[in-house]
Amino acid sequence: MKEKHDVFERAVEHTVRVRYSETDKMGIVYHANYIVWFEVGRTEFCRAAGFPYSEMERQGIMILVTGVECRYRRSASYDDDVTIRTRMGDAGSRGLSFFYEIVRTDDGALLAEGSTRHVFVDRSGRPVTIPSAIREAFARFVAPEGPGPTTA
Amino acid sequence: MKEKHDVFERAVEHTVRVRYSETDKMGIVYHANYIVWFEVGRTEFCRAAGFPYSEMERQGIMILVTGVECRYRRSASYDDDVTIRTRMGDAGSRGLSFFYEIVRTDDGALLAEGSTRHVFVDRSGRPVTIPSAIREAFARFVAPEGPGPTTA
Amino acid sequence: MKEKHDVFERAVEHTVRVRYSETDKMGIVYHANYIVWFEVGRTEFCRAAGFPYSEMERQGIMILVTGVECRYRRSASYDDDVTIRTRMGDAGSRGLSFFYEIVRTDDGALLAEGSTRHVFVDRSGRPVTIPSAIREAFARFVAPEGPGPTTA
Amino acid sequence: MKEKHDVFERAVEHTVRVRYSETDKMGIVYHANYIVWFEVGRTEFCRAAGFPYSEMERQGIMILVTGVECRYRRSASYDDDVTIRTRMGDAGSRGLSFFYEIVRTDDGALLAEGSTRHVFVDRSGRPVTIPSAIREAFARFVAPEGPGPTTA
Repeated sequence: MKEKHDVFERAVEHTVRVRYSETDKMGIVYHANYIVWFEVGRTEFCRAAGFPYSEMERQGIMILVTGVECRYRRSASYDDDVTIRTRMGDAGSRGLSFFYEIVRTDDGALLAEGSTRHVFVDRSGRPVTIPSAIREAFARFVAPEGPGPTTA
Repeated sequence: MKEKHDVFERAVEHTVRVRYSETDKMGIVYHANYIVWFEVGRTEFCRAAGFPYSEMERQGIMILVTGVECRYRRSASYDDDVTIRTRMGDAGSRGLSFFYEIVRTDDGALLAEGSTRHVFVDRSGRPVTIPSAIREAFARFVAPEGPGPTTA
Repeated sequence: MKEKHDVFERAVEHTVRVRYSETDKMGIVYHANYIVWFEVGRTEFCRAAGFPYSEMERQGIMILVTGVECRYRRSASYDDDVTIRTRMGDAGSRGLSFFYEIVRTDDGALLAEGSTRHVFVDRSGRPVTIPSAIREAFARFVAPEGPGPTTA
Repeated sequence: MKEKHDVFERAVEHTVRVRYSETDKMGIVYHANYIVWFEVGRTEFCRAAGFPYSEMERQGIMILVTGVECRYRRSASYDDDVTIRTRMGDAGSRGLSFFYEIVRTDDGALLAEGSTRHVFVDRSGRPVTIPSAIREAFARFVAPEGPGPTTA
C-alpha cells in the first residue's frame, strides 16, 4: 500500500443511501459492500476529473483492480446516508491507487477507510501505459492550486 | 407465465449453501437472492442437458432474461443447504421458460417457486432462432423416456 | 398479481446510478438487480408517505416479501441514471402490493416494470394486521386529492 | 496484517462455482466477490474445526470483520470452479485472522490471496474474550500433529 504522503489532497465526495440488500443478519452493512462503495467513489472521482470511466472503456481502456484493502471502524445501518470521500494516489506510468474514507453523512463519523490499486489494461486484458490525456486530466485535477473538495 | 402442463417433468437438482452475504437484517435470505439461485439452477440444467451455457456463449448465443416471477413460502437461513430444482417449459422458436422450486435440502420444505422467461440473442443483442443443436439437445433431455431427476 | 385498476396514481420517483458491480458479463445490468431497485423504490415510497421503513422496524413491524414479478423491456448499462417510479396497490388488512416502473432517466425509456406483494409481520415473523397509523398515513398519501408525482 | 510465520499450516478447502451474477461487464468476476468467497472459506473452516459459525451465533458470539485485504493475480470466469483455501492465523484473546488463497480448481492457478481480521463481539456488539471452548477447538484443529488439508 502507498504511504499516506503520496495521496493528493483533492477529494471527491459522493453520498449513497444504505439499501436493505446491503445489510446482513448481524443487522449492519455486510463488509464486502464497502468495496462496492469504493467503486462508486472511484467512478465519481473519474467523472469529476473530467474522464468518466464509462468514456475510458469506450476508448478501450480499462482499469483493473489488482489490490484492495479496508479497515472497518464503525458499522453502517439500513437507510443511513454514507459519504464516500475518494482521493487519488501518485499515478505511475501503468497503474494508480485510490484512497477512500466512508463517513456517516449525518455526523461525519468515520465508518471505514481503505485503498485500491489498479493497472490500466486494453480490451484484451494486456497492461498498457496510461493514455496521456487521462494522465494529464488527473494531474490537473489534483494539482494543489485546484479547488477544494468536490461533491459529485 | 406458462401454464403448468407445459412444464416437462425432467428436473435437474443442484444444492447450494446459504452465504452470510445472502442474508439481510431480517435474519433471513434477502429475497432477490432467490433470483440468483434460479440462475444457478438454469446453468446446471443446461450443463445436464449437454449444452453448458458457457459453451453457448462461446458460440455467440446468449439467453436474455425477459421476465422473472417468484413466490416465497418460507424463509431460508444462513448455512442452510437449499436445493434448486429446475424444469424446462415448452420452448418456442425464439424463447423458452424455466420453472424452479427452491427446497430446504434437509427436510424438503418448499421455500419458494418461480419461473423465468427468455429469448435467445446474438452477441449484438438481436433475437435469434434457437440453434437446432441446442433445441434438439434440450428436447432429447426432457423426452418422457429419459431418466428421472438428475443431480448436477 | 393485482389488476391495474387497483393501483393508486400517486407515484414516488427516485433515481439511482448504475454501479459497475450491478453489471454482468453480457455488459448490461444483471436482472436480479432490478429487484433490489424495487426495494429502493419501496423504501423511498414509505419515506415520502411519512412512514420510513426503518421507523416501522423500530416499532417492531416488518414488511415481508411474499412475491415478486418483473418484465424486462430494455437493458440498463453501467453509469446510466435510472429512475424508479413506485406506486402502491390497494392494501388489505394484512398485506399490500407495490408496482414499479424502471425508466432510463435521460430519455424516459421504459426498462422494466414489475410488482411485489407483502405481508406485515412482527419481530417473530408472525403475520399481523397493518397498524392503523401506517394504514392511514398511506391512505392519506395516495388519496386522489393529494399532490402529483413526488421525487424522494 | 500478520506476518506469514503466524499462519498455521492446516488448511480447509472448499470449492464454489462462479455464478453469472458474480461477473461484471469486463467479462470476469467482480473483485468484491472474492471477499464474499473469503467468508465462505471462513464458514467452512469453522465447521471443519468443529465450531460451525451458525452455532457460535446461536450461543451469542459473533465474529465481526475489522479488516480485509486482497491481492488479485488472475481473473476468474463464469462457470469456473474455484477453490478457497483457508488458514487461521495466531488467535489473540479477543481477535483472530484468517488467510486465504483462491485457486482455479482445474489447474491450481492462484487467482487471489488475502486475509481478514476479526474481533469477537456479543449480541450487543461489545468486544468479548474468545470463549475457551472455541479457542480450544481451534487450537486442537490447527495443532501440527493434526491431519493434512481438509476438504469441506
